[in-house]
Amino acid sequence: MRKPGPGARVPTLAAVLDVIRERVSVSRVEIAEATGFTAATITHAIRELIAVGFVRETGTVQAAMGTPRRLLELEPSACYTVGIQLDRFTATGVVVDLAGRIVARSTMSGAGEREPDEMLAFIADHVDALLASAAIPRDKVLGVGLATYGPQDRAAGVLMTAQPTASWLGYPVAATLAELLGVPVLIENDATAAAIGEEGLGGRRSSFGTVYMAGGIGGGVVLDGLPYRGATSNGVELGHISIDARGAACSCGNRGCVENIGGPTAIVRRALAEPDLAARLRLGGNTVADFERVARGAMAGDSAARALIAASADALAVATVTLVNLFDLGRIVFAGAAFATAGPMYQEAAQAALDRSVFMRAAHPVAVELSPQTSDAAAIGGAVIVLRSLLETRTTTSGPLVVAR
Amino acid sequence: MRKPGPGARVPTLAAVLDVIRERVSVSRVEIAEATGFTAATITHAIRELIAVGFVRETGTVQAAMGTPRRLLELEPSACYTVGIQLDRFTATGVVVDLAGRIVARSTMSGAGEREPDEMLAFIADHVDALLASAAIPRDKVLGVGLATYGPQDRAAGVLMTAQPTASWLGYPVAATLAELLGVPVLIENDATAAAIGEEGLGGRRSSFGTVYMAGGIGGGVVLDGLPYRGATSNGVELGHISIDARGAACSCGNRGCVENIGGPTAIVRRALAEPDLAARLRLGGNTVADFERVARGAMAGDSAARALIAASADALAVATVTLVNLFDLGRIVFAGAAFATAGPMYQEAAQAALDRSVFMRAAHPVAVELSPQTSDAAAIGGAVIVLRSLLETRTTTSGPLVVAR
Repeated sequence: MRKPGPGARVPTLAAVLDVIRERVSVSRVEIAEATGFTAATITHAIRELIAVGFVRETGTVQAAMGTPRRLLELEPSACYTVGIQLDRFTATGVVVDLAGRIVARSTMSGAGEREPDEMLAFIADHVDALLASAAIPRDKVLGVGLATYGPQDRAAGVLMTAQPTASWLGYPVAATLAELLGVPVLIENDATAAAIGEEGLGGRRSSFGTVYMAGGIGGGVVLDGLPYRGATSNGVELGHISIDARGAACSCGNRGCVENIGGPTAIVRRALAEPDLAARLRLGGNTVADFERVARGAMAGDSAARALIAASADALAVATVTLVNLFDLGRIVFAGAAFATAGPMYQEAAQAALDRSVFMRAAHPVAVELSPQTSDAAAIGGAVIVLRSLLETRTTTSGPLVVAR
Repeated sequence: MRKPGPGARVPTLAAVLDVIRERVSVSRVEIAEATGFTAATITHAIRELIAVGFVRETGTVQAAMGTPRRLLELEPSACYTVGIQLDRFTATGVVVDLAGRIVARSTMSGAGEREPDEMLAFIADHVDALLASAAIPRDKVLGVGLATYGPQDRAAGVLMTAQPTASWLGYPVAATLAELLGVPVLIENDATAAAIGEEGLGGRRSSFGTVYMAGGIGGGVVLDGLPYRGATSNGVELGHISIDARGAACSCGNRGCVENIGGPTAIVRRALAEPDLAARLRLGGNTVADFERVARGAMAGDSAARALIAASADALAVATVTLVNLFDLGRIVFAGAAFATAGPMYQEAAQAALDRSVFMRAAHPVAVELSPQTSDAAAIGGAVIVLRSLLETRTTTSGPLVVAR
């Protein structure tokens, strides 16, 4: 078992690139001041970043004293990373440039009951189309980050669950997709990816928690800009904490899980059990579409729909209080496609619960925000993690920047 | 608000002292190899540790090549730290030497309904008596670590709660006790202290969670040897997470809190509501004594007592699964005076719940252990945190090692 590592530090190249990205146009001296690295380290890192085309010199500026300083800028189109968010019900793909901007995005159908080989071929075709639509040559794609549900063995690139079908358990998801696409593939927990996507490439080093809801419910925690990992990167599993110890048994083995009480599947099941409501909202398509209809009904003032979304929001609010009581966070971001319509109801319920009952509210306030990129956060995080991973797991002497296939 | 810091690193002096403590007798070269520090850094640190009397040279050993190496040993009696665990119902004091060994310990009555000035004077008298009993002169006492309930403002040394009486809220607990005793005083969350006490001074850099139960219920998480802090060191508040979202309101503002369902106060309340059981176990003293009687009854096979302890153990098991699902830990230690008698029942219930329902059980097993120092872990942690804090918050150029009063 890998050990959790508070010692994980963003190495030199990533830190230098963060400063260049943030300041837009910057000299070596300014980078040294911002990072605290020595002049020699900066010189070394810049040489490498220029060699791989990530950074270019754009001119000089006269310093108050001494020789003119050459200015450096990011080359956003030097390379791209792809992020895919996938669960049973939803899937999104984004292509992100070196500046962290989305240059292409699309949604596709979730995994449903499909077998992994079929689904991964479908995703590969989708990525091909996405890259073609943005006219991005394959050799500029650093890799793909697949943000999906857990538990996972990130190092092996496999899921450790028989969801949605038995053959997904232990299937070589990352290796298969890498083979199909011809680029490296990493897997990541979707809620953690949403948190990473929220933090972005900005080098802000912020600390916050994410409550993630798409097909299911998850959570992520970012501390000083780095995701909380725990023993095996399978933590912050917010959807499967019990908020009703005597509640219904969940397939995970626990009882009264938040996801089974307040997740989209549970809410749609309850909506379908009310024939009047189901008819009024024209339910009966699929879970995601039906949940969206219930959310729209709630926002439009349908009282039965509103009661269901309120019950969902209350369950997430209880889980949010637990997340804060355990991780002591000052900021919570709600992200995921399921918040796209009724997000404000969730935000309001969670904020009220935190104000009323979080344990350390006398020590500091806790603010709940809706992600500005509700539906894309996890996919963006998948793309960000690929770039971060390639920069952070190597040294300037460990070989070519782009991982060989 | 202070930011959580995964970057917090055990600095040089503490790391060097850890190696000397662990290896018993060791050369500078071996310390350099074990720590990765440069020879110059080691020389500097050792010079300082010898100057303050923490370390002494004890002889030389002939190296295979080069000059003989001088051996270094810890001087365990160079200084002492005091740890006090305090809550409403229980209190324990320990004196720990530089080797981390307990040289004196005692229990005292908890805070009850006493006002802070009265209680702190009582604790100061107790510490005086404890030091006298071990013949430790005051000038060898580095400081006192007071492990108690939260929420706290650790930096200010005050509690942010009106428990047990209104005047405790914001009362200068640390400053008052420091004034009374003439040594520096730090405050720490009791459950976090228990986790720190469990990790000890050994430099093991282990990762685990602690479920703490004395008068109340709390939790602690240690990652690579360092306590998880969050935004304000008020996290891992395991006693006040909800395991019954529609449960009874708690004074903390939440509903269905673990502590209100499974804590000693709740269990004693339920026992007193059964007249036969209360008479059989001769309840009616105070909460701690009554809880201990229920625990003894359970272990002796009294079925009504056993049902109550089982309910308590089940509540803690649910909370333990949440702790692991959120922090992804491989090891959980149960510590605190309330586990002294019926600890094995709690351990068994939690282990069964984890085996059955923890989310990442396919990725790695999670083991539940009972602390070997059940009742003392928090007090020991209080003592350890004082030594660590003094060593870790200074550099070798920041002045005398022993903090001036």
